[in-house]
Amino acid sequence: MTDPQDLWPDVRPDAAKRLMAAAVDAFADRGFHATTTRDIATAAGMSPAALYVHFPSKAAVLFAISRTGHERALAMVETAAAGPGDAAARMRVLVARFTTWHATRHRVARIVQYELHALRPADFDVVADLRRRTERAVRDLIAEGAAAGVFTAPDTPTAARAILSLCVDVARWYTPESKPDPGTLGERYAELVMAMLGAR
Amino acid sequence: MTDPQDLWPDVRPDAAKRLMAAAVDAFADRGFHATTTRDIATAAGMSPAALYVHFPSKAAVLFAISRTGHERALAMVETAAAGPGDAAARMRVLVARFTTWHATRHRVARIVQYELHALRPADFDVVADLRRRTERAVRDLIAEGAAAGVFTAPDTPTAARAILSLCVDVARWYTPESKPDPGTLGERYAELVMAMLGAR
Repeated sequence: MTDPQDLWPDVRPDAAKRLMAAAVDAFADRGFHATTTRDIATAAGMSPAALYVHFPSKAAVLFAISRTGHERALAMVETAAAGPGDAAARMRVLVARFTTWHATRHRVARIVQYELHALRPADFDVVADLRRRTERAVRDLIAEGAAAGVFTAPDTPTAARAILSLCVDVARWYTPESKPDPGTLGERYAELVMAMLGAR
Repeated sequence: MTDPQDLWPDVRPDAAKRLMAAAVDAFADRGFHATTTRDIATAAGMSPAALYVHFPSKAAVLFAISRTGHERALAMVETAAAGPGDAAARMRVLVARFTTWHATRHRVARIVQYELHALRPADFDVVADLRRRTERAVRDLIAEGAAAGVFTAPDTPTAARAILSLCVDVARWYTPESKPDPGTLGERYAELVMAMLGAR
């Protein structure tokens, strides 16, 4: 089961958090289109009417899950990119944390990454902006490292896309039985990215 | 629209191919669970009864799509791994082709890669075996290159997983509007993988 306290420490009230967690499980099991607001409410131990107090529709629940997930991803990437050390040291932290997050939270990450097409147009625009900023932070860090002679990557946009892609795809294949553990996987992926960028 | 001639040149009769193509579009738009056999049959210009002549259920249609997709992926990887040149030359071809395939066929690749959980247990076993063989072919090629001093990758299973992951995730984010074109993306990803493996 998805743990709402862990995923959304800042979402209030608890009932909204419980509904979001129930929706993550329902969307993961059946997909967005086959899930009803009643399914979500029932799984959260509430009535459909109680759901509407917090969310006007199941699309609004999906948006809350997607937006908070993308905000978390952007904050993680920007914090790592602004950390101590040279561009290589910061990229190493960025990749390790982003990979570990997608392994540990693979269930919610799948909704965040794979249900974009189900977002309403205005909601999609908000999420697309968060995604562009996340990708820009990675590109800027590669460009900074290349300018400083720390990286020798041939093509910054493709390398940024590849790095994020590598981390995100962990959500697709990672299960609680997967090896290695999320922390070790993050370290190893950071090593691979260092090699990919030609870090000295 | 998904082009059945391009994807399944060997599937007979044409009606089965048309149904598989209609199912790819329906699953991509609504997800497996929210799609009915009637949706698939109607989109293929057939009656539900005509669908059952070819497939006993929508799960059987999904299995046909998933199995043929995984067989194609395995054949592509094994052919590249057995090609001419040293391990680096063959890995370069493998990554370029596998990436380009996922960019060009992103719609069917999404079904193949993301709907595994909807397969029936016996069908899943068939597909899981194809996936293991695909991953083993990539691991063997890395190990061969490492033994020959062509690669200096630190950890063969993680590198194999990362390489396949990078190629597969293209299906998630690639659209007909994406840059660069599928062939160029394949070449650039091959370069990144060469760096990742420390190819000389």
